[in-house]
Amino acid sequence: MSASPETPAADAVTTATATDAAASNPTPAPAPVTVLGLGPMGRALASAFVAAGHPTTVWNRTEGKADELVAQGATAASTPAEAVAASELVVICVIDYAASGSILEAAGDAIKGRTLVNLTADSPDRARAAATWATERGADYLDGTILTPTVTIGTPDAVFLFSGPEALYETHRATFASLGGTATYQGADYGRAAAYDVALLDFFWTSVSGLMHAFALGKKENVAARDLAPFARGILDILPPIMDLLAGNVDDGVYPGDDSHIISVAAGIDHVIHAADDRGMDTGVLRAARAVAQRAIDEGNGTDGIERLAEVLGRPAA
Amino acid sequence: MSASPETPAADAVTTATATDAAASNPTPAPAPVTVLGLGPMGRALASAFVAAGHPTTVWNRTEGKADELVAQGATAASTPAEAVAASELVVICVIDYAASGSILEAAGDAIKGRTLVNLTADSPDRARAAATWATERGADYLDGTILTPTVTIGTPDAVFLFSGPEALYETHRATFASLGGTATYQGADYGRAAAYDVALLDFFWTSVSGLMHAFALGKKENVAARDLAPFARGILDILPPIMDLLAGNVDDGVYPGDDSHIISVAAGIDHVIHAADDRGMDTGVLRAARAVAQRAIDEGNGTDGIERLAEVLGRPAA
Ligand SMILES: NC(=O)c1ccc[n+]([C@@H]2O[C@H](COP(=O)([O-])OP(=O)(O)OC[C@H]3O[C@@H](n4cnc5c(N)ncnc54)[C@H](OP(=O)(O)O)[C@@H]3O)[C@@H](O)[C@H]2O)c1
Ligand SMILES: NC(=O)c1ccc[n+]([C@@H]2O[C@H](COP(=O)([O-])OP(=O)(O)OC[C@H]3O[C@@H](n4cnc5c(N)ncnc54)[C@H](OP(=O)(O)O)[C@@H]3O)[C@@H](O)[C@H]2O)c1
Repeated sequence: MSASPETPAADAVTTATATDAAASNPTPAPAPVTVLGLGPMGRALASAFVAAGHPTTVWNRTEGKADELVAQGATAASTPAEAVAASELVVICVIDYAASGSILEAAGDAIKGRTLVNLTADSPDRARAAATWATERGADYLDGTILTPTVTIGTPDAVFLFSGPEALYETHRATFASLGGTATYQGADYGRAAAYDVALLDFFWTSVSGLMHAFALGKKENVAARDLAPFARGILDILPPIMDLLAGNVDDGVYPGDDSHIISVAAGIDHVIHAADDRGMDTGVLRAARAVAQRAIDEGNGTDGIERLAEVLGRPAA
Repeated sequence: MSASPETPAADAVTTATATDAAASNPTPAPAPVTVLGLGPMGRALASAFVAAGHPTTVWNRTEGKADELVAQGATAASTPAEAVAASELVVICVIDYAASGSILEAAGDAIKGRTLVNLTADSPDRARAAATWATERGADYLDGTILTPTVTIGTPDAVFLFSGPEALYETHRATFASLGGTATYQGADYGRAAAYDVALLDFFWTSVSGLMHAFALGKKENVAARDLAPFARGILDILPPIMDLLAGNVDDGVYPGDDSHIISVAAGIDHVIHAADDRGMDTGVLRAARAVAQRAIDEGNGTDGIERLAEVLGRPAA
């Protein structure tokens, strides 16, 4: 369970692992950290910091979420300002940037001179706006994104991306390493980690949505989800070996349809829609995917490969 | 690249591999086979039969597609009737059942006494209707489905499912083994292979559609698809370890939302839609997926896990 790349990513990228950090900085005293937001992910982050020996201060809007962490050794603050005052490094991880913004507003002047690391998932422009807001108020800012589920935090399977000032990232690398897994610095654009994140979330949630629909359709045909799952795992194995090829073609704007073209894919989707409609299912996602294929066909590109769909999707639907 | 299950599938399932077939039936004379339909997949099937030494007769609606196969040793027939008359076993693989039906109609009485194996992808009810049609005309019928791309045919990575009379499947196992990979018999219901197929196609094409959208969104944010692909491969790795859990919960109708619930997922999809709208993209698939999450939320199940979506998707949208 890992979202780390199998091949090295773009230039200007540095990676930090627990091992690297230990080697370059033997037995550093774990730095104090504040974690704002104790949903499932905030709790996982705080727990990993505590386990790695960081003096950890936590705060959450709704009370009660800190109890277990306090039992582990964390300190609960009663206001955002108090929490932010406790550590030079402040990690925030809540539902969206509207929430992180309101919490940081509430912290007031306390953020001056702090380093804010926003691990909340949101869009690139909101990450850039949050960086502007924070730096205007005298805080340093790094944006980050978490590509793996809560269970991976503190394990080698966790994957983090960061963007913002590189020197700031380097200063806190050793602390980030306490969260486990692999961290990758993606560049100075504050929105870049979020750009990766939204694109990868896009892929993940669309796929999961397809999996749930597949389980539902199987059920209607008396195929248990348990019986379908092993084959669904096999279906997943088809993608990795062709992903680099598809990606290269998307980048290069070439769409060879020799093995399977859009008209054939559209016919396949039609079979699925027909089967699902027959069984009284919700076919909204499939119809939307089918409409994208139709756009390509209507534009005279039906015998192109599926990579063409990335080009079509880059333009708004009529 | 394999869609074979990692765990044994349901009871009453037998599997055949090239090795099994050779062991149980040493050096059988490869049986004559006819392949109707020479699209990319029909050509791959015919080529594998030729390579395994089967006297292979081929036919395609549009001429010229047989030339390479004839050079390899196949015989081109000039009508469906002539092609069907050439072999006791007739494999058909075209774009859909409307096409396979019209080809078999054109073959007329020649199908009497033949075994028709329809590897065309379509919905379960159409597979059942094709079986009725064929058996009423004195042909034996097996339905099958191919879960892997053309490049896997004749290699260990190919995956086939069959359903229909088990004795018929057993009779032709050795011939199917010439196509390589793993074949699984899924039961007597003629529509069962197609049921697996539509559900797995559902998952596959929805995922691919999400991948293309992710590449398009990355591009808008100056993240090359080549740079995103390694992380997208990592994202794919998240699913397999949790698939059995999700499947079991779907079957059992339990939807624990402890690690990530539907409200949180909906917020994540909103970020993606916001980012994609900002960049003037087509967001139809995402909006449709978001609407499904909203149905669950509106029904008071927003704090359930994503497995709940399979239950929601089983009912038509309002
Ligand atoms: N869970 C995962 O596996 C996972 C994986 C990768 C990334 N992430 C990302 O991590 C972030 C946090 O996710 P999560 O799993 O912890 O659950 P979440 O449901 O996304 O966020 C819950 C947190 O947000 C807070 N919050 C919500 N609205 C608020 C508001 N208006 N003002 C202040 N605080 C507010 C909640 O406080 P209350 O307790 O007071 O409601 C709680 O601390 C999200 O951006 C998510 O996308 C999660
Ligand atoms: N390609 C893959 O990787 C793959 C993987 C798994 C399953 N499959 C399944 O295999 C089947 C065949 O796929 P394919 O890749 O070979 O391409 P396809 O585009 O789905 O089918 C092309 C074949 O269908 C024939 N055809 C189309 N309309 C016809 C009609 N009205 N009457 C007679 N023949 C007609 C074509 O003949 P003409 O040459 O005359 O047009 C050609 O032989 C499909 O059901 C597909 O879903 C394909």
